[in-house]
Amino acid sequence: MRTPGFSGADLANLLNEAAILAGRRGKTAISSKEIDDSIDRIVAGMEGTVMTDGKSKSLVAYHEVGHAICGTLTPGHDPVQKVTLVPRGQARGLTWFIPMDDPTLISKQQLFARIVGGLGGRAAEEVIFGEPEVTTGAAGDLQQITGLAKQMVVTFGMSEIGPWSLMEGGAQSGDVIMRMMARNSMSEKLAEDIDSAVKRLSDEAYEIALSHIRNNRDAIDKIVEVLLEKETINGDEFRAILSEFVEIPVENRVPPAAPAALPA
Amino acid sequence: MRTPGFSGADLANLLNEAAILAGRRGKTAISSKEIDDSIDRIVAGMEGTVMTDGKSKSLVAYHEVGHAICGTLTPGHDPVQKVTLVPRGQARGLTWFIPMDDPTLISKQQLFARIVGGLGGRAAEEVIFGEPEVTTGAAGDLQQITGLAKQMVVTFGMSEIGPWSLMEGGAQSGDVIMRMMARNSMSEKLAEDIDSAVKRLSDEAYEIALSHIRNNRDAIDKIVEVLLEKETINGDEFRAILSEFVEIPVENRVPPAAPAALPA
Amino acid sequence: MRTPGFSGADLANLLNEAAILAGRRGKTAISSKEIDDSIDRIVAGMEGTVMTDGKSKSLVAYHEVGHAICGTLTPGHDPVQKVTLVPRGQARGLTWFIPMDDPTLISKQQLFARIVGGLGGRAAEEVIFGEPEVTTGAAGDLQQITGLAKQMVVTFGMSEIGPWSLMEGGAQSGDVIMRMMARNSMSEKLAEDIDSAVKRLSDEAYEIALSHIRNNRDAIDKIVEVLLEKETINGDEFRAILSEFVEIPVENRVPPAAPAALPA
Amino acid sequence: MRTPGFSGADLANLLNEAAILAGRRGKTAISSKEIDDSIDRIVAGMEGTVMTDGKSKSLVAYHEVGHAICGTLTPGHDPVQKVTLVPRGQARGLTWFIPMDDPTLISKQQLFARIVGGLGGRAAEEVIFGEPEVTTGAAGDLQQITGLAKQMVVTFGMSEIGPWSLMEGGAQSGDVIMRMMARNSMSEKLAEDIDSAVKRLSDEAYEIALSHIRNNRDAIDKIVEVLLEKETINGDEFRAILSEFVEIPVENRVPPAAPAALPA
Amino acid sequence: MRTPGFSGADLANLLNEAAILAGRRGKTAISSKEIDDSIDRIVAGMEGTVMTDGKSKSLVAYHEVGHAICGTLTPGHDPVQKVTLVPRGQARGLTWFIPMDDPTLISKQQLFARIVGGLGGRAAEEVIFGEPEVTTGAAGDLQQITGLAKQMVVTFGMSEIGPWSLMEGGAQSGDVIMRMMARNSMSEKLAEDIDSAVKRLSDEAYEIALSHIRNNRDAIDKIVEVLLEKETINGDEFRAILSEFVEIPVENRVPPAAPAALPA
Amino acid sequence: MRTPGFSGADLANLLNEAAILAGRRGKTAISSKEIDDSIDRIVAGMEGTVMTDGKSKSLVAYHEVGHAICGTLTPGHDPVQKVTLVPRGQARGLTWFIPMDDPTLISKQQLFARIVGGLGGRAAEEVIFGEPEVTTGAAGDLQQITGLAKQMVVTFGMSEIGPWSLMEGGAQSGDVIMRMMARNSMSEKLAEDIDSAVKRLSDEAYEIALSHIRNNRDAIDKIVEVLLEKETINGDEFRAILSEFVEIPVENRVPPAAPAALPA
Repeated sequence: MRTPGFSGADLANLLNEAAILAGRRGKTAISSKEIDDSIDRIVAGMEGTVMTDGKSKSLVAYHEVGHAICGTLTPGHDPVQKVTLVPRGQARGLTWFIPMDDPTLISKQQLFARIVGGLGGRAAEEVIFGEPEVTTGAAGDLQQITGLAKQMVVTFGMSEIGPWSLMEGGAQSGDVIMRMMARNSMSEKLAEDIDSAVKRLSDEAYEIALSHIRNNRDAIDKIVEVLLEKETINGDEFRAILSEFVEIPVENRVPPAAPAALPA
Repeated sequence: MRTPGFSGADLANLLNEAAILAGRRGKTAISSKEIDDSIDRIVAGMEGTVMTDGKSKSLVAYHEVGHAICGTLTPGHDPVQKVTLVPRGQARGLTWFIPMDDPTLISKQQLFARIVGGLGGRAAEEVIFGEPEVTTGAAGDLQQITGLAKQMVVTFGMSEIGPWSLMEGGAQSGDVIMRMMARNSMSEKLAEDIDSAVKRLSDEAYEIALSHIRNNRDAIDKIVEVLLEKETINGDEFRAILSEFVEIPVENRVPPAAPAALPA
Repeated sequence: MRTPGFSGADLANLLNEAAILAGRRGKTAISSKEIDDSIDRIVAGMEGTVMTDGKSKSLVAYHEVGHAICGTLTPGHDPVQKVTLVPRGQARGLTWFIPMDDPTLISKQQLFARIVGGLGGRAAEEVIFGEPEVTTGAAGDLQQITGLAKQMVVTFGMSEIGPWSLMEGGAQSGDVIMRMMARNSMSEKLAEDIDSAVKRLSDEAYEIALSHIRNNRDAIDKIVEVLLEKETINGDEFRAILSEFVEIPVENRVPPAAPAALPA
Repeated sequence: MRTPGFSGADLANLLNEAAILAGRRGKTAISSKEIDDSIDRIVAGMEGTVMTDGKSKSLVAYHEVGHAICGTLTPGHDPVQKVTLVPRGQARGLTWFIPMDDPTLISKQQLFARIVGGLGGRAAEEVIFGEPEVTTGAAGDLQQITGLAKQMVVTFGMSEIGPWSLMEGGAQSGDVIMRMMARNSMSEKLAEDIDSAVKRLSDEAYEIALSHIRNNRDAIDKIVEVLLEKETINGDEFRAILSEFVEIPVENRVPPAAPAALPA
Repeated sequence: MRTPGFSGADLANLLNEAAILAGRRGKTAISSKEIDDSIDRIVAGMEGTVMTDGKSKSLVAYHEVGHAICGTLTPGHDPVQKVTLVPRGQARGLTWFIPMDDPTLISKQQLFARIVGGLGGRAAEEVIFGEPEVTTGAAGDLQQITGLAKQMVVTFGMSEIGPWSLMEGGAQSGDVIMRMMARNSMSEKLAEDIDSAVKRLSDEAYEIALSHIRNNRDAIDKIVEVLLEKETINGDEFRAILSEFVEIPVENRVPPAAPAALPA
Repeated sequence: MRTPGFSGADLANLLNEAAILAGRRGKTAISSKEIDDSIDRIVAGMEGTVMTDGKSKSLVAYHEVGHAICGTLTPGHDPVQKVTLVPRGQARGLTWFIPMDDPTLISKQQLFARIVGGLGGRAAEEVIFGEPEVTTGAAGDLQQITGLAKQMVVTFGMSEIGPWSLMEGGAQSGDVIMRMMARNSMSEKLAEDIDSAVKRLSDEAYEIALSHIRNNRDAIDKIVEVLLEKETINGDEFRAILSEFVEIPVENRVPPAAPAALPA
């Protein structure tokens, strides 16, 4: 199932899109291919045309494979569904992951693994092309990751600050002033503790991402080569190549049939 | 009496719900069973279907029993009314406590006991499954607990800062600017003192919760086993099993008949 | 005269209430009893039913007698008019004091005495029942006391900071931004000086309140005993019992006839 | 001329009041007495009845004479026009000064003298009655004085901070955000420098006021005695008595005819 | 040309004013005298009557000559057009300068010279009359000067902080929140650096202004004498007298014909 | 192609402008000259008349050549398209660069080169004319550069602070309060780290710009001489002269045909 976060209305919309797609393809019935393509479109936007070969395309390929490898090698991460250089919406490449069944009960290790995976793209740029060549393309990743790290510290009590809720009820209040005071009632000292806890999480995760990239250079070069050639590789192909070079953590391996995913 | 915080309109609504329920069950009169079920629904939301067996369900069970045990073993806490794995509203499991008669005159010890009980869920996750496996499921508990600890310091003068009211009258004022200035007129030094006093309360309570869980591992395993089997156990059953392993503080014991409760 | 703060409209309202009360009691004329009861009702709200005996009622009794004794033994405090366990509005017990004639020219010593008296309730809870048993019942007292102490420092120039007005004119301005800037133009250093001056006043007053309670335990036990029995004792009865144990400061003694009062 | 700050409309209003007053007094023409009484009423409010004798009245008398003496003995201060115990508006006593001719070009020494004079009331309370007996009656004086001291530092560049304008143009802007940013763009360091400069000015002025009172106890007692007896004394009477005890600075002496004044 | 900053509408308005003036003076054509007088009125307000002789008038004369001399002796300053004791609008005296041709490309030295000139008035008050006699009359100068110094630091990158723009784009944004955040995103450390850089500029300029006044006391006394006698002296007269005492910097000298000016 | 950032509507508008221009020039068809002129006008505003010779014109010439040389000598910068003294809109001179093909994937080195190029104007003013002669003309450059440096630190994770997104999602939120809290939730410590990282980037870039100017004085004098004579020189002419004095970095050289550009 690729649709765990979908509402009833989303599902109706999805079937509609799929029906139109099937019609356009001259089919009399909706196949799982139409469903799959419609999910991709709803989640990540319209498909674009693939970049022409060159340094930029190569950089995008290494960036995406960086996500895929860092995610796959960190225990607790969702498995890769596919990696693609076909752009969608704003993104020039996408790595899709298969979402876990229960999105409301997530462990600290799983959240941390998502941060490592999310930093995989920038880590690949830095290791492969050198620090002055890292690009603005990671801006979206950084924003998502910092948000996750902050939630771990502030909402879920998962840092050295302890099992506190550091963003009080007032912050979600309907009363504008309650919300402003929610922040204002925090001391500078506590704000600083939060910032260092978030920084520590990000720094640790980035170190792990960098070492995944450095320790698996051959595997990455191989997968990028295939990706540049085929433009899209699915999770099983990806894991098959990767397994030739390194052992994937047991819990991150995937049983033969596992359809749905989200981009990252 | 399970309805100490109910207004006249709440009670009318309750009887209405109970009447509908009795009708649906083909009864000609409302029994205490219908009243009880209606209270549960009004306070905590619609009943859901029980989770399928697995690590998540086990984690929820340990989390709820953590609340029940930490509450029961801390002097001054309300007694357990029931522990259940039947979800309601957003919650995947619930522990209900029997509210004290006078909700407006609460002692420092009673407030502190509520903080210990509220941290019992997270403490159980950490002790039983290990720190990397603690989950996002405790977010609501943390928010409630931090709010309580803050009120002890800021409103009730129950910390080392002394018998001060640290949130001045202005904070409740109808005048937006008065409310903003209420916080602004506080020095950074005082804001920091408040944050450390709140942290000290939370840290002390968490230490106590962790030791309740560590010292009563056998009792917890036994109660979780029964809970997974029966899905709901009432307060008397709970206390009966617990008493086989440890002595419950005198003031937290319950005389035979004690009906109403609130979830925690 | 018990009505020094009353406006003309308040007095008209008072007479109306008294007339209704006299009618309800089958009287043809308003006696001073009806006036008095109407004042109580206007100032403190509707009368409730007395609590049933138990720890809570005992705690409320000690709390009120704490106010009465700390006020009476601190030079410059208004004299007690009556102490009662008959609840009114939100309050479970009340101590009424006879207001001074000129409410606009109050000395530093008189303001400080009000702070000591206001902390008498909490001080009694702590000395008699122990620190873990202090209750949320003092929240209103603390808010009033902190407000008084802050005014002494900020508006009346009565602290070691000196004869400054620390809340500038802008703070009362009709212009929202002027009011916000009034606070903003204060340095953190000055905000901290204000907070410590307020804390020093509160701490000193609480020490004095605690020692009044500790040094007069026998008197307090005796007065509480009478209060629990009679539910209300007037100022003369109160002072009569207290005088058996300790000498009341000359300026706080009351000439035979002294009618009006305010609760505290 | 007692009307330097009056607009044309104010003057029209003044003549109207004087005409009514003359009519009420059965006069056919307005005399300077009616003009003078009307000015008093417009500037300071309705006349009230004199307090009954007692400690409060004595305190008010010493407070007003404190203003009059500290003003008169500090070089650069406007001369006293009259001192009175007849209340007006909120004030229980008033000291009126004769305003200088040009209110827009005021020297640093003149502003400082106003601060000393303004603190004279509180200084007299402290020296004569003792520090615990200082009253809330000085609140208005303190607010005016702190405002003056702040203007000297912030607007007129008259402190050790130097000839800076510390409240930028934005602060008077019609644009709400410009005004908020005016303060926000100031560093905490500068805000602290301003607060200490203001404090230094106030502290110096209070020291001078205290020594004027301490060094002229006999003169003060004598003037208070006359004031309590006559209820109002004019500037010439005041200066005549004071000159028996101490020499008035040359520039603060007044030539025989000098009519108009403002209360302080 | 005295109208470099005038828009087309301003010029039309100017000609209109000049025509009315010529008519009032019984002239059949507008002469350059009418143009000049109209410019003065549009820029600085209505003409008033000259002050009567006395200390205040003398102080105003020294203040204006202080501006004229400090401006003239600081390299890069615009030349004096005239100095006058005829009041206009709020000002009791005015010194007019001939504006440079290109008001949009101004050098650091030119901005600094304007600050020295602007502080010349206060510097003259302090040197001639003594520090306690400095007046509130410099408030407008101080505000303009501080604004200039701040712009040098914050907008033009002309301080030791370096070629930074310290007021980000957001500050001019149409979005209220963007503007508030523009300041908020600045650290306290940076705000403090800005404040010290502004202070350093002002302090240096004031030292220079003070030494111009101290070193040219004879010239100042002579020019003030002439000014008090004639009420207005033009730039050439001013420079002629000044040149008898001190050499004017080459770049600040003025070729015979140079008409337009702005007050300072 | 000079139009990479143009939308469809922009392109329609461009063609319209070019058609009008061709008509005005009596042409029957739009040539690339009309397209080019229309782009200049749309991007930088209306053309003005060239300044008359003098120090200001010379300063503008050195300023623009400073941009062109610092850009051309820093690896990763876009190549110069033309340098001109013909004013447009607010600008008195302009240097146009040929934009890179993909404006959404920019490397750290490329962003840094833009900062060096942007500081080239001010650096030329300082080196050629001396520090007191730097002008207000660089204000726009400084604002753009500081904005770029801040984005590198805050949005793209390209500083020593690490791969963090320091401006959280809330900052772009539609909810006013979310946006205010986005900044407020940052500690003072982090705000200071951001400011120093931005300062370090600017300081490093300015040092490089200064040394490009100092090391290439002969080339600059020669190019300025030609520019003052011809008023506009195109990129190829510019690079031809520069190459006589210094070697241009390989990656910044331009193949013969390269049309479009943006001013800087």
